[in-house]
Amino acid sequence: MNVKDWLDKVKWNADGLAPVITQEVSTGKVLTLAWMNRESLAKTRELGSAVYWSRSRQKLWHKGEQSGHIQQVRDIRLDCDRDALLLSVEQVGGIACHTGRHGCFFYGLEQDDWVEQEPVLKAPDEIYQSK
Amino acid sequence: MNVKDWLDKVKWNADGLAPVITQEVSTGKVLTLAWMNRESLAKTRELGSAVYWSRSRQKLWHKGEQSGHIQQVRDIRLDCDRDALLLSVEQVGGIACHTGRHGCFFYGLEQDDWVEQEPVLKAPDEIYQSK
Repeated sequence: MNVKDWLDKVKWNADGLAPVITQEVSTGKVLTLAWMNRESLAKTRELGSAVYWSRSRQKLWHKGEQSGHIQQVRDIRLDCDRDALLLSVEQVGGIACHTGRHGCFFYGLEQDDWVEQEPVLKAPDEIYQSK
Repeated sequence: MNVKDWLDKVKWNADGLAPVITQEVSTGKVLTLAWMNRESLAKTRELGSAVYWSRSRQKLWHKGEQSGHIQQVRDIRLDCDRDALLLSVEQVGGIACHTGRHGCFFYGLEQDDWVEQEPVLKAPDEIYQSK
């Protein structure tokens, strides 16, 4: 078997991407929703830490490359439709969000508006200057 | 404030959709990745149970309408980029996947292939005839 067959079994969308849910093993917290292409998934497997595809920058993005907040991959799952991925990780530094929060889903719907519900653990300026 | 302002604060994609991660409150398990449009999110809020947008059928899809396996919504979150949603739910019947499994992310990457890692709890034929 060609060792890259498993990459072809993912149903990549028209842009060659699949959405990736990243969940922290130790807490069960959903940290991020990001995107991967074929190359970033192969790289994630190879390195054992999460490499996404940045849609805004249109390039591979090794999560934590600047901040040091890498995601150590423990498990990789594919869903029934084979078009979405679930990564189980340990989050180095305890910060996954570029805003300095633990995770990215920090706006909660209260009454009729979105309200910030999680503390900033470290100022973004500090995160991105510390390396 | 217009009560629908909060719907406009979501950054819907070019197709008017946003990806939705659905997580089970009681177990922390990530059940599904699905999609919502503006109308389905409004409907989810109104009903208190998950209503998605079916991309294959191009229509609103009240999860569990056929199977009875509805998702009771406990919390709705938006991410830092405002383009992805996280739903915390209780899954009625303990089955979220149309294959009869607890969740949809049942293919695990082992060696160089995707391997089914979760049991079918109820045969699909049985699920969709039971109502």
